Amino acid sequence: MSLPDPIAKLVGSLTTLPGIGPRSAERIAMFLVQSEVNEVKQLAEAILQARERVGFCAVCGSLTETSPCGYCRDPRRESGLVCVVERPVDIFSLEKSGTYRGKYHVLGGKLSPVQGVEPENLRIGELEKRLMVEPIRELVLALGTDVEGDATSYYLAQRLSRPGLTITRIAHGLPAGTGLEFADELTLSRALEGRRELK
Amino acid sequence: MSLPDPIAKLVGSLTTLPGIGPRSAERIAMFLVQSEVNEVKQLAEAILQARERVGFCAVCGSLTETSPCGYCRDPRRESGLVCVVERPVDIFSLEKSGTYRGKYHVLGGKLSPVQGVEPENLRIGELEKRLMVEPIRELVLALGTDVEGDATSYYLAQRLSRPGLTITRIAHGLPAGTGLEFADELTLSRALEGRRELK
Repeated sequence: MSLPDPIAKLVGSLTTLPGIGPRSAERIAMFLVQSEVNEVKQLAEAILQARERVGFCAVCGSLTETSPCGYCRDPRRESGLVCVVERPVDIFSLEKSGTYRGKYHVLGGKLSPVQGVEPENLRIGELEKRLMVEPIRELVLALGTDVEGDATSYYLAQRLSRPGLTITRIAHGLPAGTGLEFADELTLSRALEGRRELK
Repeated sequence: MSLPDPIAKLVGSLTTLPGIGPRSAERIAMFLVQSEVNEVKQLAEAILQARERVGFCAVCGSLTETSPCGYCRDPRRESGLVCVVERPVDIFSLEKSGTYRGKYHVLGGKLSPVQGVEPENLRIGELEKRLMVEPIRELVLALGTDVEGDATSYYLAQRLSRPGLTITRIAHGLPAGTGLEFADELTLSRALEGRRELK
């Protein structure tokens, strides 16, 4: 005899989630069957609601309950400035920093020939359309700082280059609150390259 | 602006689960809103089903869809042998080993004066009732091997002692598949104490 069938099924479902292995799934399942019915219902409802009510913005590709999303519709945001990110969740990271007041564009990933991600798999065509109809004067590329992020940034800079458009990339350098001793060589060499005059 | 409301709520619900911090919750929530609707519904349904269909066995305290549970009702199991464990999930661990053919009793924890767990908070009274009506001749204590597990075992051995009943404890020693160099002192001293003659 083994786990009761409903628990085994729940464990199976939970292990499909990112970062949840068989052990954690079992632990969570055990926790749930011993929790208050109302709390369990709330969790199930939260899962369904999130999936049903949240979708992608047709313009920028962010996660939103309305399309176009709040970022695209916000008149106080600079419409000439668009920040290009890999995933919808990156927008929330940038928003948390509280310093960016432009709009966004979600690529949906980065170029990776190894994993079969070609330009046509990313939302680059959508970005080109936006460049034609919106008064965009600067694209800020804010992709990951790995090899694929680099390659994608250079590809975009070339493909999207047009008169009157500035394409920039967010600075790479030392993260806040750490010392030189914790930084790897690549981060340090980029921090040096990106040095700026103190005035 | 921050996360869409349904996602924020889902993250809140997910962080109440054991082992899920804010970061993993966000990652899982993002995964779910981008998953197939059917898979998401399946997960929500699995959660509800597990909570609704699984309960505790009135006799042994195990997790089950029927009460008494399959272990208690199984006529092929030795009714004279009862293994005492802390939590329902321990039963599944023992079953996986495939060597135990008796019945079970779940205590629901172990004595811990610091955390306010007194004998009346555990299913000891229920075990005493079973000793009166079931033909039990041996209790195998299979609690954790920490201080509280030790204290609980000694407490049970004293309180449950009666004529015709043997109370044993599972062996403590070296785990399978490791060398002496990975064992701590306490494990080694217990492995030495528990040595048996090779015949």
